Amino acid sequence: MAQKPSIPKGTRDFLPADVARRSYVINTIKTHFERYGFLPIETPSMEKSASLLGKYGEEGDRLMFHVLNSGEKVKKADLAALADNKLGRFTQSISEKALRYDLTVPFARFVVQHQNELTFPFKRYQVQSVWRADRPQRGRFQEFTQCDADVVGAVSPVLEAECIQLFDAVFHSLHLKDATIRINHRSILSGIATYLGAPDRIIDFTVALDKLDKIGAAGVFDELKHKGFDEDALTKLSPLLALSGSINEQLDSLESLLTNQPLAIEGISHLRDVLQFVSPLHVSNLAFDLTLARGLNYYTGIIFEVAPPKTVSMGSIGAGGRYDDLTALFGLKDMHGLGISFGLDRLCMVLEELDLYPNTLQQSVDVVVLHLGDTYMQDLIPHISKCRAAGIRVLTYPTSHKLKKQMQFANQSNVPWVLFFGEEEQKEGILSVKNMVSGTTEKIELDTFDPSIFTT
Amino acid sequence: MAQKPSIPKGTRDFLPADVARRSYVINTIKTHFERYGFLPIETPSMEKSASLLGKYGEEGDRLMFHVLNSGEKVKKADLAALADNKLGRFTQSISEKALRYDLTVPFARFVVQHQNELTFPFKRYQVQSVWRADRPQRGRFQEFTQCDADVVGAVSPVLEAECIQLFDAVFHSLHLKDATIRINHRSILSGIATYLGAPDRIIDFTVALDKLDKIGAAGVFDELKHKGFDEDALTKLSPLLALSGSINEQLDSLESLLTNQPLAIEGISHLRDVLQFVSPLHVSNLAFDLTLARGLNYYTGIIFEVAPPKTVSMGSIGAGGRYDDLTALFGLKDMHGLGISFGLDRLCMVLEELDLYPNTLQQSVDVVVLHLGDTYMQDLIPHISKCRAAGIRVLTYPTSHKLKKQMQFANQSNVPWVLFFGEEEQKEGILSVKNMVSGTTEKIELDTFDPSIFTT
Repeated sequence: MAQKPSIPKGTRDFLPADVARRSYVINTIKTHFERYGFLPIETPSMEKSASLLGKYGEEGDRLMFHVLNSGEKVKKADLAALADNKLGRFTQSISEKALRYDLTVPFARFVVQHQNELTFPFKRYQVQSVWRADRPQRGRFQEFTQCDADVVGAVSPVLEAECIQLFDAVFHSLHLKDATIRINHRSILSGIATYLGAPDRIIDFTVALDKLDKIGAAGVFDELKHKGFDEDALTKLSPLLALSGSINEQLDSLESLLTNQPLAIEGISHLRDVLQFVSPLHVSNLAFDLTLARGLNYYTGIIFEVAPPKTVSMGSIGAGGRYDDLTALFGLKDMHGLGISFGLDRLCMVLEELDLYPNTLQQSVDVVVLHLGDTYMQDLIPHISKCRAAGIRVLTYPTSHKLKKQMQFANQSNVPWVLFFGEEEQKEGILSVKNMVSGTTEKIELDTFDPSIFTT
Repeated sequence: MAQKPSIPKGTRDFLPADVARRSYVINTIKTHFERYGFLPIETPSMEKSASLLGKYGEEGDRLMFHVLNSGEKVKKADLAALADNKLGRFTQSISEKALRYDLTVPFARFVVQHQNELTFPFKRYQVQSVWRADRPQRGRFQEFTQCDADVVGAVSPVLEAECIQLFDAVFHSLHLKDATIRINHRSILSGIATYLGAPDRIIDFTVALDKLDKIGAAGVFDELKHKGFDEDALTKLSPLLALSGSINEQLDSLESLLTNQPLAIEGISHLRDVLQFVSPLHVSNLAFDLTLARGLNYYTGIIFEVAPPKTVSMGSIGAGGRYDDLTALFGLKDMHGLGISFGLDRLCMVLEELDLYPNTLQQSVDVVVLHLGDTYMQDLIPHISKCRAAGIRVLTYPTSHKLKKQMQFANQSNVPWVLFFGEEEQKEGILSVKNMVSGTTEKIELDTFDPSIFTT
């Protein structure tokens, strides 16, 4: 019985125009990754469950897609676990593989597994799909594409400055102005938590701080009070939230407030080291953001996050930071890591909304060939082949339908050139070439036909 | 606890050199797909199980990877089915999605679902991974990449000729000589089955015929006898297996033998129609192969299969054919289809074995920058940025390690240029640029430094 076809929720089909736009963005990102010396790798879509489980916290385990064992193996289903409502254990009894959840953990696994085949410091980029069983919503899908660049095996402010330059270079190429690259440092947040008298409560503190944009300083204070921070702490926090001026001015103010917090001073000093390599380049829209606290159980140093232009209501389109312990999960210690990631799907939505895609993306064919039938086609084929060999994209109308229908097809194809070969043309040994932009038709002798006409 | 990391059997990590080679092949194929007017689409990795199950025969259902339902949904496990050993039903009770098994069925689903957004005839190409729980062996993986080009909504020998030209163009670009493009026609096989007095036994007949290469004519005869074909049938078959000469000569012989079989005559005539568009182009290594019988429950007209050069022991590296009923599975009738597919993974192995990859693929960075520390780097950064803006791929050595160690890294990076900036250089306002091929070093004034030196 015929089914009404559809695809799983949170997944998407990409039509040719979509693919053209996505490829444009991916190629732009890849080009810049390569200019910064990153090399491409790819990892399997499926990883062993043991490589992924427990690496992303409870939420990650819950949102992971598990692949069922094949054939007879499902007979090993742990029915007792199912009866006990131990769904995790039940799942593991019938599934040994899971779909990639991000590109960072597989990269850590890759580095450890292939450490003897790599030259360190190793810079890799990776553009692949990841899967999460998250509730679909605007800008959030169950299958989406990440574009990651990471360097492992070296620590240097130069590398962190290059991350900032790389973000900037990509957005510049995409003509995306006013995306804000926000930076912060894990040690500054730790120092502040200590300063507030709650060194062990950094998570509570940053979770509240992260909401500053949404609920304002008063809201943050309320939440912190609710979580047990005392008046003294809130009094100390107040001036920290009122920093102003250039990044360097803000760091100066912060330094004078946190003089006695060595961790914070270390973080501030590190950011200054990074900035010395960034300022000569006039990176636009770089901002210090004390409330930036993403992935704190993951990042150990500098933290990046990129917000789209304020006119677009959308979450972050890029992120990253330093993480110094990740490969230890797979048994390799002291391998320092630093990485950034572009969220392709959101980035594409932002470009769409701001109408920033080049018009040329709409043209995927250069010439449509119309003809009156097989005998005409026989004469045409050597010339069509010549065009294709010269790199011209030629779409032959496959059948000798009425010319009106063929012309209609050419119009719908949004093609700059139409080549026609009919009775008159065959008799006179010519081709009719119509420029669909200007509307003019030119007659060209078959003997002297040169495909380069279609590249002008 | 640290795990010794590994990946699921039948899957692969691709290191930078692997990705470079695969991208080279993929880009070559894509370039030619586009020159023939095919447009790119992409479909989700996961399809609804209902879209895939039953579309690939029993084997397909067995080898499909099923994705477990998330969260509480696994509680709906049909334990009675499991107890009854009805594993298919059990699987469906806890899984609603499966990983893509090929690109053709998802394409049929896509065409039906988006029919109102497409212009017909619609030519699409698609380069994506597919997954099969097959026993891994040489050239066979559980995750592999297919490169498909299909046209739906038109029937014309021109399109079929273009498929042959397209195969040839790709292999030509890859410098892969001696790949044989084999063609046959479903109607010829049907006509022969009738001629042998067993019109309903075409599958038995073609399965035996398919083994001609391996077991010879005598073996084929034995198998057919065993399957109940009589002496008369085998006598009739004998001359069919002894065709010789050019394709046209073989078709002539076949026609005279099968004069009274209208189906066969129709198939022969159709192949002649196709060949009239192919011969002028001198497609090399095109062969008519009566024993070619792939995908008979799928293809309805012409059938293609490409064998690698005889010196390489490997299965087919390309295939395709006409299928006229595929979208009917999803409720859209009379949508004729024709397609070809390249098996990327095998094709890469063949190129590897024949040493056909260009040497340039090994170079993924143009310049490595060596320096003595942060103050040197500050002076260098504007020049490095200039290089990157000009498209040069620059890898900065991130730290001021001993120069010997930095130089060692440059050597391992297989890079054509090294840029060095040390004490002397800083004092004199120059850059030292070493050509790693010739071994010569040039000193260039900072003021007049032009990145184009690295493109020569």
